[in-house]
Amino acid sequence: MADRAGVSVATVSRILTGSYPASPATRARVMRAVKELDYVANAHARALAGTPSKSVAIVLNSVISPHYAHVAQGVEAQAASEGRLCLIGTTGGDPEREFAMVKFMREQHAEAVILVGNVVADEKYRQRMSQYARALAAIGSRLVLCGRPPLGPDVPAVVVEYDHAGGAFAATSHLLSAGHERILFLGHRPGYTTADGRLAGYRRALAAHRVPHDPTLEVEGTMEWHEGYRMMQQRLAAGSPDFTAVFCVNDLIAGGAHRALVERGLRVPDDVSMVGFDDLPPSLDLNLTTVHLPHEEVGRTAVRLALEHEARGGTPAHVVLGTHLVVRNSVRPRPT
Amino acid sequence: MADRAGVSVATVSRILTGSYPASPATRARVMRAVKELDYVANAHARALAGTPSKSVAIVLNSVISPHYAHVAQGVEAQAASEGRLCLIGTTGGDPEREFAMVKFMREQHAEAVILVGNVVADEKYRQRMSQYARALAAIGSRLVLCGRPPLGPDVPAVVVEYDHAGGAFAATSHLLSAGHERILFLGHRPGYTTADGRLAGYRRALAAHRVPHDPTLEVEGTMEWHEGYRMMQQRLAAGSPDFTAVFCVNDLIAGGAHRALVERGLRVPDDVSMVGFDDLPPSLDLNLTTVHLPHEEVGRTAVRLALEHEARGGTPAHVVLGTHLVVRNSVRPRPT
Repeated sequence: MADRAGVSVATVSRILTGSYPASPATRARVMRAVKELDYVANAHARALAGTPSKSVAIVLNSVISPHYAHVAQGVEAQAASEGRLCLIGTTGGDPEREFAMVKFMREQHAEAVILVGNVVADEKYRQRMSQYARALAAIGSRLVLCGRPPLGPDVPAVVVEYDHAGGAFAATSHLLSAGHERILFLGHRPGYTTADGRLAGYRRALAAHRVPHDPTLEVEGTMEWHEGYRMMQQRLAAGSPDFTAVFCVNDLIAGGAHRALVERGLRVPDDVSMVGFDDLPPSLDLNLTTVHLPHEEVGRTAVRLALEHEARGGTPAHVVLGTHLVVRNSVRPRPT
Repeated sequence: MADRAGVSVATVSRILTGSYPASPATRARVMRAVKELDYVANAHARALAGTPSKSVAIVLNSVISPHYAHVAQGVEAQAASEGRLCLIGTTGGDPEREFAMVKFMREQHAEAVILVGNVVADEKYRQRMSQYARALAAIGSRLVLCGRPPLGPDVPAVVVEYDHAGGAFAATSHLLSAGHERILFLGHRPGYTTADGRLAGYRRALAAHRVPHDPTLEVEGTMEWHEGYRMMQQRLAAGSPDFTAVFCVNDLIAGGAHRALVERGLRVPDDVSMVGFDDLPPSLDLNLTTVHLPHEEVGRTAVRLALEHEARGGTPAHVVLGTHLVVRNSVRPRPT
């Protein structure tokens, strides 16, 4: 504190004990330093009081995915505004670690345990989720599923979905309206709820515009940058492009696909039009037209509904949040 | 389970009770379904056993910063490999929330509490960290500071630093070797350890190449994409560029600055050379030459040192991890 006030330790102690006729300036400096250090003392006092902190928890595959990170950000913001701590647990996609994490959060009496993202919603998954939901409800906590299908009326879980199909329909229609008919779909992943929802919207848009559906345009891959690069590179290696536009199942894939196009001397949007999905990095750097998914609102809503539920003891809420197209500069009319 | 096996519930029960002469195929289908659901039962058993889980904790400002997220990923990976749960807490940069989070993690008896990133290492900060370190050591836990300066020999904290100055020196020298002398520094932030370290390396490189230091080339701003955009846009609005290269204090700033340059019709690297720092998104999308910071290794090392410390009860470790230049395609020799 003496450092902070820029005086000697002796001076500080004399001033604090009032046994020293310091100049007003010196006294002010010392008192300011005292004030600045105050909350450390307060904090320490609270630490001794040791009142347990209420918390909400979010369990993710990983925090390096911008999608998961932005939902977690929303959970964190809402938790803070409701005076709760926000705990984040990651599982690496391993059900055993997911189980251990949910179990831990339950032992902490987290008021809500929020699970996010892409899954294969099979029987095994539904069994596991139902078990979580009941185990949490039994202690007055709440399971919240984000971007995952509901488990049915008999399972006490809150569900916050977003409209994958609607967003993909809008993005694909945007390409179709610009005259594109051969639209590559990157990121097909049969069985996974997120990819399936987006593929359904893509196919619906083709049908609505009476454009024949060509399954060979649907390329399988996961949702990472390097997968987008791989899928596009392999497609281009197979011969000259048999498409004029690309629908990427998320923005990360768009980043990798964009790099593969540039390496082949193809420009976006001059030579190939492209849309993504999420409105997250790297869409801004790519100037990419994409579908805005309200990630932080998803997180905020998950916390709000879970805590309201606590207060009301009502039936589990199920909401679907909308998505909308964000037009940047990655789409051009098809050259005729 | 009947769904899963594709047979009637009655058939399943008959087969399980052995009171039904099913075909080998049907029996196999049912038994596979049983096996698939098995670990749910096991998990349930473990849940009843309720053995408490060992854990390590990492406390961050935010998970949407790629820097923090990748360190957390490393912590998570190492924790998993050592059979610990990894808990992530975020504070929004608020010392009060940081305090509440550290207190909570201490109450959970987390074996390590890891704090990451950019701070003003003033007296108030040092007081708070010393308090955390002692409070954690008192229960056999360990405070770990990542990318922050040591607190001194009397404070029981593990420190994992990385070489900001060395990396910035290498990146700036790379530009100087290409003939650039007017190098804009974006992201000056007096008092913040990360920005100060990188600025020191930039200045050292100028001195080493006997290039006069021009303070007007050092632009103040924080480490977000939009700040990079703002800083570059304002610089270009002030008149024709008075620089031929740009050092961005991190890759996010490079993303925003790149956008501002493109909007002014300036190409990277043809018109302006650019380097970043971190080797994180969006450096790949920008094809940006940048400084690789071993984020995940930082996280892994933090956990390893904290747990080893536990085992050995030795003096707090202090390591500095190296950085190195990753050459991509954002630098060209200065046109003469």
